[in-house]
Amino acid sequence: MFSHNKRLQYTVRVAEPNPALASLLLEQFGGPDGELAAAMRYFTQGLAEEDPGRKDMLLDIATEELSHLEVIGSIVAMLNKGAKSDLAEAALEEAELYRSLTAGGNSHTQAILYGGGPALTNSSGVPWTAAYVDSRGDPTCDLRSNIAAESRAKIIYERLIAITDDPGIKDALGFLMTREIAHQKSFEKALYAMADNFPPGRLPGMEPYDRLYVNASTGPGDMDGPWSSGPEWERTDEEEMTVPADGGEGMAEVKLPSDQMKTVEAMTLRTKSDPNSDPLTGVDLGAGPPVEDDAD
Amino acid sequence: MFSHNKRLQYTVRVAEPNPALASLLLEQFGGPDGELAAAMRYFTQGLAEEDPGRKDMLLDIATEELSHLEVIGSIVAMLNKGAKSDLAEAALEEAELYRSLTAGGNSHTQAILYGGGPALTNSSGVPWTAAYVDSRGDPTCDLRSNIAAESRAKIIYERLIAITDDPGIKDALGFLMTREIAHQKSFEKALYAMADNFPPGRLPGMEPYDRLYVNASTGPGDMDGPWSSGPEWERTDEEEMTVPADGGEGMAEVKLPSDQMKTVEAMTLRTKSDPNSDPLTGVDLGAGPPVEDDAD
Amino acid sequence: MFSHNKRLQYTVRVAEPNPALASLLLEQFGGPDGELAAAMRYFTQGLAEEDPGRKDMLLDIATEELSHLEVIGSIVAMLNKGAKSDLAEAALEEAELYRSLTAGGNSHTQAILYGGGPALTNSSGVPWTAAYVDSRGDPTCDLRSNIAAESRAKIIYERLIAITDDPGIKDALGFLMTREIAHQKSFEKALYAMADNFPPGRLPGMEPYDRLYVNASTGPGDMDGPWSSGPEWERTDEEEMTVPADGGEGMAEVKLPSDQMKTVEAMTLRTKSDPNSDPLTGVDLGAGPPVEDDAD
Amino acid sequence: MFSHNKRLQYTVRVAEPNPALASLLLEQFGGPDGELAAAMRYFTQGLAEEDPGRKDMLLDIATEELSHLEVIGSIVAMLNKGAKSDLAEAALEEAELYRSLTAGGNSHTQAILYGGGPALTNSSGVPWTAAYVDSRGDPTCDLRSNIAAESRAKIIYERLIAITDDPGIKDALGFLMTREIAHQKSFEKALYAMADNFPPGRLPGMEPYDRLYVNASTGPGDMDGPWSSGPEWERTDEEEMTVPADGGEGMAEVKLPSDQMKTVEAMTLRTKSDPNSDPLTGVDLGAGPPVEDDAD
Amino acid sequence: MFSHNKRLQYTVRVAEPNPALASLLLEQFGGPDGELAAAMRYFTQGLAEEDPGRKDMLLDIATEELSHLEVIGSIVAMLNKGAKSDLAEAALEEAELYRSLTAGGNSHTQAILYGGGPALTNSSGVPWTAAYVDSRGDPTCDLRSNIAAESRAKIIYERLIAITDDPGIKDALGFLMTREIAHQKSFEKALYAMADNFPPGRLPGMEPYDRLYVNASTGPGDMDGPWSSGPEWERTDEEEMTVPADGGEGMAEVKLPSDQMKTVEAMTLRTKSDPNSDPLTGVDLGAGPPVEDDAD
Amino acid sequence: MFSHNKRLQYTVRVAEPNPALASLLLEQFGGPDGELAAAMRYFTQGLAEEDPGRKDMLLDIATEELSHLEVIGSIVAMLNKGAKSDLAEAALEEAELYRSLTAGGNSHTQAILYGGGPALTNSSGVPWTAAYVDSRGDPTCDLRSNIAAESRAKIIYERLIAITDDPGIKDALGFLMTREIAHQKSFEKALYAMADNFPPGRLPGMEPYDRLYVNASTGPGDMDGPWSSGPEWERTDEEEMTVPADGGEGMAEVKLPSDQMKTVEAMTLRTKSDPNSDPLTGVDLGAGPPVEDDAD
Repeated sequence: MFSHNKRLQYTVRVAEPNPALASLLLEQFGGPDGELAAAMRYFTQGLAEEDPGRKDMLLDIATEELSHLEVIGSIVAMLNKGAKSDLAEAALEEAELYRSLTAGGNSHTQAILYGGGPALTNSSGVPWTAAYVDSRGDPTCDLRSNIAAESRAKIIYERLIAITDDPGIKDALGFLMTREIAHQKSFEKALYAMADNFPPGRLPGMEPYDRLYVNASTGPGDMDGPWSSGPEWERTDEEEMTVPADGGEGMAEVKLPSDQMKTVEAMTLRTKSDPNSDPLTGVDLGAGPPVEDDAD
Repeated sequence: MFSHNKRLQYTVRVAEPNPALASLLLEQFGGPDGELAAAMRYFTQGLAEEDPGRKDMLLDIATEELSHLEVIGSIVAMLNKGAKSDLAEAALEEAELYRSLTAGGNSHTQAILYGGGPALTNSSGVPWTAAYVDSRGDPTCDLRSNIAAESRAKIIYERLIAITDDPGIKDALGFLMTREIAHQKSFEKALYAMADNFPPGRLPGMEPYDRLYVNASTGPGDMDGPWSSGPEWERTDEEEMTVPADGGEGMAEVKLPSDQMKTVEAMTLRTKSDPNSDPLTGVDLGAGPPVEDDAD
Repeated sequence: MFSHNKRLQYTVRVAEPNPALASLLLEQFGGPDGELAAAMRYFTQGLAEEDPGRKDMLLDIATEELSHLEVIGSIVAMLNKGAKSDLAEAALEEAELYRSLTAGGNSHTQAILYGGGPALTNSSGVPWTAAYVDSRGDPTCDLRSNIAAESRAKIIYERLIAITDDPGIKDALGFLMTREIAHQKSFEKALYAMADNFPPGRLPGMEPYDRLYVNASTGPGDMDGPWSSGPEWERTDEEEMTVPADGGEGMAEVKLPSDQMKTVEAMTLRTKSDPNSDPLTGVDLGAGPPVEDDAD
Repeated sequence: MFSHNKRLQYTVRVAEPNPALASLLLEQFGGPDGELAAAMRYFTQGLAEEDPGRKDMLLDIATEELSHLEVIGSIVAMLNKGAKSDLAEAALEEAELYRSLTAGGNSHTQAILYGGGPALTNSSGVPWTAAYVDSRGDPTCDLRSNIAAESRAKIIYERLIAITDDPGIKDALGFLMTREIAHQKSFEKALYAMADNFPPGRLPGMEPYDRLYVNASTGPGDMDGPWSSGPEWERTDEEEMTVPADGGEGMAEVKLPSDQMKTVEAMTLRTKSDPNSDPLTGVDLGAGPPVEDDAD
Repeated sequence: MFSHNKRLQYTVRVAEPNPALASLLLEQFGGPDGELAAAMRYFTQGLAEEDPGRKDMLLDIATEELSHLEVIGSIVAMLNKGAKSDLAEAALEEAELYRSLTAGGNSHTQAILYGGGPALTNSSGVPWTAAYVDSRGDPTCDLRSNIAAESRAKIIYERLIAITDDPGIKDALGFLMTREIAHQKSFEKALYAMADNFPPGRLPGMEPYDRLYVNASTGPGDMDGPWSSGPEWERTDEEEMTVPADGGEGMAEVKLPSDQMKTVEAMTLRTKSDPNSDPLTGVDLGAGPPVEDDAD
Repeated sequence: MFSHNKRLQYTVRVAEPNPALASLLLEQFGGPDGELAAAMRYFTQGLAEEDPGRKDMLLDIATEELSHLEVIGSIVAMLNKGAKSDLAEAALEEAELYRSLTAGGNSHTQAILYGGGPALTNSSGVPWTAAYVDSRGDPTCDLRSNIAAESRAKIIYERLIAITDDPGIKDALGFLMTREIAHQKSFEKALYAMADNFPPGRLPGMEPYDRLYVNASTGPGDMDGPWSSGPEWERTDEEEMTVPADGGEGMAEVKLPSDQMKTVEAMTLRTKSDPNSDPLTGVDLGAGPPVEDDAD
């Protein structure tokens, strides 16, 4: 059960309105690495988690991310506050209003469609989708996904901090960025508090494919590193690149019932192409002036 | 530059057709953790990578994932081969065809819309979207995202292996699953081959918020663990949950030019709600027989 | 700032597992009229609202909807609990697991992709999208949208209640359904607590088009009602259906600079079709055996 | 059955081309509250409606909305007419063409991808989706959704009118805006011409939850109004916010068959986290220069 | 301007209700090759077309496709009519209703979310998206896209005809299928009524790349045909597959200002990977019981 | 099985960085007619194709399109290279960075979210979706779709060439554009190398509807052409536009079991509208100051 206090988790002081900047900050409101994605990732994991410690941690952090969603949404609302009223009251000349909302970023849609409220879109106006949420119901995967998600959220905040000199916004973004660092640390602890978390899941890999490195890209710039060579690795190099890994023919086949085999043959015959034809084509018809049709 | 050999990276032997199973396997063809997502994640990272070792590794693995896309797509094509012809040639009675494609999973759409070819959808028929690709142009994030993605792909293959007893499919899925383990190992090596990869990016966190744990979810089941307590952590517990982290008022504010302040006031007045009214509402009108309108 | 208590707003007692039913209930977890949509609709409105009463109400109800999201998600988790473990541990034979997750609804994707956790999709597996959130930043619109959204959520719960005989689920769904009724009442009160809420926004309509009814669909079944006739209405009937409402020519025109006029003419000439030709087409080529091309 | 007359429902006179403005107007062509959404909302409802009066009204208005789609699309086409030819004929220098289509809004995609034709996207270029259509097959819901949709469409037109000073466009947008007002009136009449339209659907609510107001958001700014207090309402206030509404424990439970209980236990054990560990984590490895691995 | 007659373009006689079949037929209502896609493809082209003949044809066919949308939607409504009422009135026991809507296809979502009305989704419940509409504002492309779209719509109808033995539905689907054939013929005529429609657009190709065939896929099954060999073609074969077509180095380069070159170097240095390291990684930590951290 | 050589298929020489231009070029990287769409269209067709010649051709061209994806992605990476580092290293003042990424197009999202790497979006930032891939598993359709897709890709390249004067980019785009011309020729040859490719699929049309032209759009500008008149065509003109094509009543009907008929009647009665009422509505309540409710 959730409850809410109208105080924010972090005080928001915005020096002046700027709807175009607001539209960029939406990246962390309704973007793929934004706070809604974070909250929903951990919340959906927490609901189905059996381990009491992880469940509690997931719900703690999910709840805090909702408070972050509120902080970033409040910054956006402040940056848009004047422009929202200007449009609602038509307080400026048409041409001035038009200019004000084509000043950059995605502020035009934020004004016309969302009326200056914080919208659950990214900075291009793409609506948030749960396709961003990669919860898979296995903790050895989900914790790794959470670690990665926190690292992505951190870098987006870092970029937003780099493009604004409003000290109040910089300060609040710095707080939000830092919390992602702390969350990443929690998820790392939780991952390594599980004995035997690699390989993820239950099944071991098939020998020897788990120590094979396939050097599939060759040419200038080909290099080695600990990710591809050394005692842990066997390698498939250029000359073997067309040999199936299992040593077989590398073909795909299926055993069909004889009825279906006949139907496949019928279909194949019906749709057969003649490799020895040299047909006149639409391109030939189209490459000059229209050819009159005297076929009828 | 890519080239292709019509031999598969792993030989595919399917014991009998099964379009419903094919529709489940699409999860790894056009689903969020499928092979296209993997290939595109690494390919987009590789194109923009400056570090020659990482660039080469990303292109190696991206290329191999395309070969995996081909393997899983070939299994799907084999499982659908008979059904595809049956429908194309209308080789069965209508009622039998109807039954054959409502036998479970998402095989109805695979037949009617995609004609039995492997479709870039997940197992529910949701088209693949690049929203699944979380490349962010920073290696300390991207490598973590890749590690997480490989772990997710591994678990999906594990689940698919658990639901089929066709030995040829099980074998090929086992190969594909194992390669995800190997790729995860490569990405881990590459991450830790970077000095100072944490915190991700360039900026350090703001003290002390990087060592704060917010116990935002309380009540029955509240627990501690290395993710929330110990010498590394400071904690915000229940009693402090409504105090802003910065010690401020927790309000959001913006300094508006005086013109805009007046416009905000005008808008607020125009759309004011009267908290002391007790208005008749649509609900009152709707809760009984229609009230005749003698207002005109 | 949000906080959370691990007690649910309503106790959930599920009589037996049923993953297919779980997949249907997802409609109210990640569907268009589900609890996330509700929470996000009111939360985004609340953040930008200037009127203190409406702001408080929106945040009250947004917060409660998050608690509802937790209740419905917990029912889904309970219904999936056994199946989740069966698949994770491969506790059943392959054929039995396969059957268990093709038993109806969308349970196959819920198992394979989401591992039995509650997923933010609708009952077809379509990921939740913020395209469902119709907040527009104007209270005379937003409150009407909220009223409509609550009525839709009510009817979906009503339908779900009709298809399950598990008394614990029926009871919890009944609670959730009833809360939508109460929320609709709150939003109605808030709408009519605004003086002059119709027409929405600030601009009046253009006379006489605001009292015109256009009888655009004729033929068998044409009818009148208070929505189309009576002293409040003027009508456009069949015989006038091709006369522009403004009495003009009904054409679209633009004044172009002379340079652009010339360019338009050039493009038109270049792409001109000859209405008097009778060209041979691709269809003619394709309707028989391939025609040999002796054009070269 | 539809028929079409090439006269528009309202004459369109555009003073001068302006592709950036065109891209903003797309909001009402392919945006969520645009004319296609309106037409499809009413058309899908009309097809399945049994009540003859409502069916006729829905088809009347659906048809008129198609005519509006044509009017707004024609304005867009006029605004783009010159730019379309300029690009098609490469009538300007490259640098000039480049500037012309990065002048604001979303005109770059409209030019490059759609070639200056009216595209079914919103003003950010997001393609129209049927996720915008909230028809639910129950008239007490659908009519409320229609009322809300008309109010939203009205406000978007009002905003577009505020940003253009072209008198011909302003006039046509005024007509379209006004028609939304008239349609809202029709839908209101139709809603209240149904006896007993509240609560929506068939089932009554569960006492006493239909008169409960949950004051879930507290802190500064907490307020009362007719939506939350008065003789019609019972209230849950701050001190009760962690007590389940049903007076129960607020826990979620399911009765599992004993086999599944054992499997759940096995899975829980396998994925157990150790709350008393203090594990070394990836973060520790990553916070400094690479640690050489002498574990092998 | 559109008008509507409540008579359908083709009479619909459905022998018995079948919601699962209805959900399959949605493919042609809200699927990618369905009637809405067709109508919108031609309508958006028609609005921007300058050539009077093509404009008229596009609007003729767009209008007819709307009538087809109505025919297919009416079949769906008839197939769902009984189930819609059964659910709305809860006329059956819960278990029976549950069974009735998990009988196959996507009928569960059609019932629960859409209440048995025709929904603008495909047969998997994926909402229609304007991403299906490939109008590009150039007639040499658009007419080819229309020809292709008509051929796809034809084949989907053919498949639907193959799976139903209801004579009334078969008859109406046959009509709709046939109209796609006729429309394809119209679009072919219009394409070849343009002189010089190939290559599409205005620019000629660059010699000799317009007559080059790249044999990029080799191995078993490599074949020739008129599409790859003969006097019209030059070929790149296996041995040349790693030589850039332009004879250059095949590298990508950009001339950067010196400031940016320094920044690129700084970034590269900061994120450098050490190819000679052999780092301990998260995988090493995770492959056994948790390693206690005595780093602090 | 794929392999990769780090040489590009065409050398890329970019004269100077330009992130805004990069964002426009994304149209051919992650847009609907871009190289990923092309590669996936042919690859999915190739996997399921039985005809050996077409299979080989499809895999040849699919593979080449992947090489094109790499060329266009490399141009984008070069154009973004400096801006990527500037943001990552915060090498410029905040205000300057802010300006640099709001300079037009969609470069703001490319910088903030994707960090300057090539993203699989179109030029508006809309993520690539497999909804763009129209493979249908029938060669008479798929080859036509491929022809159309190549023509669309050609025109997009033509437009991009028109807006850049960088000779290296112009040259590489010219190569890519030309390859689309060559591919179109291959697909045309393959289509007409099939005997009897029209009508697509297996079923003939129903007489006489395959030679009927429906003049559904009348009024000013009505025209004839080879697409609508001549000896091949029969016509339905204005006066017949409300007569069903089959000569029937044009109504939709279904035979319902008697139980369902009763339920339909019950539902119809419960939701009946009264056409003779003149109800007071929400609009009446909302058109003035709030009406006090003394109904309770």
